[in-house]
Amino acid sequence: MATYQHLRIDTINQNVVQAQYAVRGAVPLRAIQISEELKAGKQFPFETVVNCNIGNPQALRQRPITFLRQVSALCVCPELLDNADLGFDDCVVERARSFLARNPNGMGAYTHSQGYTSVRNEVADFISARDNFPANSDEIFLTDGASPGVKMVLNILCRDDKSGVMIPMPQYPLYSGSLALLGAHAVSYALCEEEGWSVRVEDLQAAYDDAVAKGIDVRSIAVINPGNPTGGVLTEQAIADILEWAYAKNLVVLADEVYQENIYVDTKRFVSFKKVLRTLESQDKCLGLELASFHSISKGFLGECGLRGGYTELTNFTPEIKDQLYKLASINLCPNTLGQLAVGLMVNPPQGDSPAAKVYRTERDSILDSLKSRAARSEAMFNSIEGVSCQPVEGALYAFPKLTLPSKLIEAAEAVGQAPDLFYCMAMLDAIGVCVVPGSGFNQVEGTWHFRTTILPKGSAFDEYLENVPRFHREFMAKYE
Amino acid sequence: MATYQHLRIDTINQNVVQAQYAVRGAVPLRAIQISEELKAGKQFPFETVVNCNIGNPQALRQRPITFLRQVSALCVCPELLDNADLGFDDCVVERARSFLARNPNGMGAYTHSQGYTSVRNEVADFISARDNFPANSDEIFLTDGASPGVKMVLNILCRDDKSGVMIPMPQYPLYSGSLALLGAHAVSYALCEEEGWSVRVEDLQAAYDDAVAKGIDVRSIAVINPGNPTGGVLTEQAIADILEWAYAKNLVVLADEVYQENIYVDTKRFVSFKKVLRTLESQDKCLGLELASFHSISKGFLGECGLRGGYTELTNFTPEIKDQLYKLASINLCPNTLGQLAVGLMVNPPQGDSPAAKVYRTERDSILDSLKSRAARSEAMFNSIEGVSCQPVEGALYAFPKLTLPSKLIEAAEAVGQAPDLFYCMAMLDAIGVCVVPGSGFNQVEGTWHFRTTILPKGSAFDEYLENVPRFHREFMAKYE
Repeated sequence: MATYQHLRIDTINQNVVQAQYAVRGAVPLRAIQISEELKAGKQFPFETVVNCNIGNPQALRQRPITFLRQVSALCVCPELLDNADLGFDDCVVERARSFLARNPNGMGAYTHSQGYTSVRNEVADFISARDNFPANSDEIFLTDGASPGVKMVLNILCRDDKSGVMIPMPQYPLYSGSLALLGAHAVSYALCEEEGWSVRVEDLQAAYDDAVAKGIDVRSIAVINPGNPTGGVLTEQAIADILEWAYAKNLVVLADEVYQENIYVDTKRFVSFKKVLRTLESQDKCLGLELASFHSISKGFLGECGLRGGYTELTNFTPEIKDQLYKLASINLCPNTLGQLAVGLMVNPPQGDSPAAKVYRTERDSILDSLKSRAARSEAMFNSIEGVSCQPVEGALYAFPKLTLPSKLIEAAEAVGQAPDLFYCMAMLDAIGVCVVPGSGFNQVEGTWHFRTTILPKGSAFDEYLENVPRFHREFMAKYE
Repeated sequence: MATYQHLRIDTINQNVVQAQYAVRGAVPLRAIQISEELKAGKQFPFETVVNCNIGNPQALRQRPITFLRQVSALCVCPELLDNADLGFDDCVVERARSFLARNPNGMGAYTHSQGYTSVRNEVADFISARDNFPANSDEIFLTDGASPGVKMVLNILCRDDKSGVMIPMPQYPLYSGSLALLGAHAVSYALCEEEGWSVRVEDLQAAYDDAVAKGIDVRSIAVINPGNPTGGVLTEQAIADILEWAYAKNLVVLADEVYQENIYVDTKRFVSFKKVLRTLESQDKCLGLELASFHSISKGFLGECGLRGGYTELTNFTPEIKDQLYKLASINLCPNTLGQLAVGLMVNPPQGDSPAAKVYRTERDSILDSLKSRAARSEAMFNSIEGVSCQPVEGALYAFPKLTLPSKLIEAAEAVGQAPDLFYCMAMLDAIGVCVVPGSGFNQVEGTWHFRTTILPKGSAFDEYLENVPRFHREFMAKYE
């Protein structure tokens, strides 16, 4: 009998092998290792690893919003509603009672595959009020974070190995990773770094023409606004230009708007792709353009990454295609109920003068003010370093500074088989314990080097970070002069 | 300018179009519609729809386990730990404190992509104790229910349109649906209905030979034990036979063991594929066979379908393949934290004589005893009907009775373009409001007709169900004599 052959890299699905996900790639894996070695007593030039590789606020001491957790606890364990000594504000108790009354199966049953109807109604109301255009709960899919929604829509769009989806460069690796898994092409369009990482129609056209010349069937364009990893925020005009261009090319538009609460400059405000599309349609432009928009509880000021909640809104999709998306959702049964509940609490915050509502607003403002200050201080710190430049951190949770690296350093990196920015980030981790992600993990214009860091360390950890990064940079560069 | 073309069924991913998921298919969709019409005041021959289409216990009044929900509420909202008037048992409070101490980021941060280390340790301890063979937390992936684990492993295995995975007939449509999405072949092996839906090596060999003759690259075999939709339970010998056969064919084995707590007959007990594999290996058989085993919080006696928790255990996978699975898990960031916590509570129940532990055991026994009684009564009811036969409901949450249908009925179904069992199930829904899933949704031997129903209605609803189904059958058959 032949020997049993184990699965090998060359015998499994090559799409999986090709997919990359740098946010949890080589540098973060090394950071996990160092953290374990620190615990085991090994000496490093720092006491703890600061994980700036991922937008994970509560891992960096951001506290959860009280209202959200109190309502959640009551819905998870309704017997608490009968406890007179609970000490929760009436508006918390009322919210939980109302949720359970509208959803008598509670949290433990599978829900509708698109999610609780009551929460989808809350989402539709939120979108209507935000955009001043109607929204319909039938076109909302609740999801376990935004990522499964993106993957679901990409799964519909990518029909064969000719299919391509336009994604920004730099991009969030969910997009390149999911397209690789589907065996489809990521068609990268460059963001204009010098103009605050803006999207320019000429760059879209160039990427599109190049893809078409290669025989790629370009089906869709994904836009991340506010930008990840860039921190840039698009103007209403830029969004309109993208939509009109996409319409002319017959593309489906994916709008990743998970950072819509995270805008830190007074000159910019969030405008949704849906609102701009409906405005254009009211002017007889872009009529019927298919748009999928994504939101999440993981970012904003909630930062509830672990609960996994989000939604996808479909605009102008036909019923037959919605049925196919429903079928995909139903194979996964339903999104997790606590994440669904939390989406409802995100879009329908406590109003008025109740104590809980006041606490809610204080907590919200404190987090957003602090993020605003950290965004400005990060940007200023990077721009104070010789050989580093950083576009304005207008939004999201990241800075994406550009590195000018000496040729000696590039040669040293090549000698160990690493991209120069990976080499730089590994050195930063080893020297000061700060874990960031090299720009090559997000894709970048060839010959440029960047890294992404979050603005999430808090308090004294942030002060130390602001001191340590420039010091590391100076000392590291000195080696390669 | 050309008109904007909407996505159409023929322009999207045809793998999505091909995928089917009957558990939420035509009959359940009609049931949702009827429920809404009932609410709106429309008259039907029944007052409520009884949803027997899906194993969703808490939608049919099964109450959540108190211990699980109390610990969960404390972990979701740790300020409750400071409330002296909470009234929770000490062992509940201790469990929550211990969880939060081991996981200082709490529930709101992304976890390790494989899930909380502390929970994976609990899972490994559970498996070690259950099987009397060691388990390793590095080889455990926590997942949002069992389904994402199955899909993750299938994603690795299916490399091109020649790839095939053997699945039982009848099967749970997660398998056929996921394989369709991956563009791979479902290679159906028939279960032997007359022998309690057993797996026979001769049937495996026949299906395998047939697939190989068609040029299919058979890569893996999935086994569901206890069986869904069949309710059958495999003997240890049957499992050993499957493993030895799979080893000779160089297949990866997928063991879907989500119903491992749901066994209702004294003649059978649950034995895991892992335990049988390790036993065989200790006899120098099947050395190194790759096995992925799946478990879930949705079934058993917890029935926590909505929380979405589960795990995958890998046995004998090489580190390089585990790395690829880790990468897939990391693209999804992490499973939801409440589901992860609940997995830990499932595998590590309260022990000893604390009040909470006693309540836990009482609740558990009450649910399992009731399911046992409902399994026996379901089976007896079906076997009392002329033209219906039902194998023993030894385990899981379902009966899968076989229908002998008159030719007039089959012609009537064909006249409206429906499979005869779909026609039958639609009629049952319209007549008595009981929603079940036709056997064609699970695949069945050609020319045979079945349906799947859960044993989950409770109390008087179950009594009515037992009365109404035979009455419907008699009246419906009378039309086609």
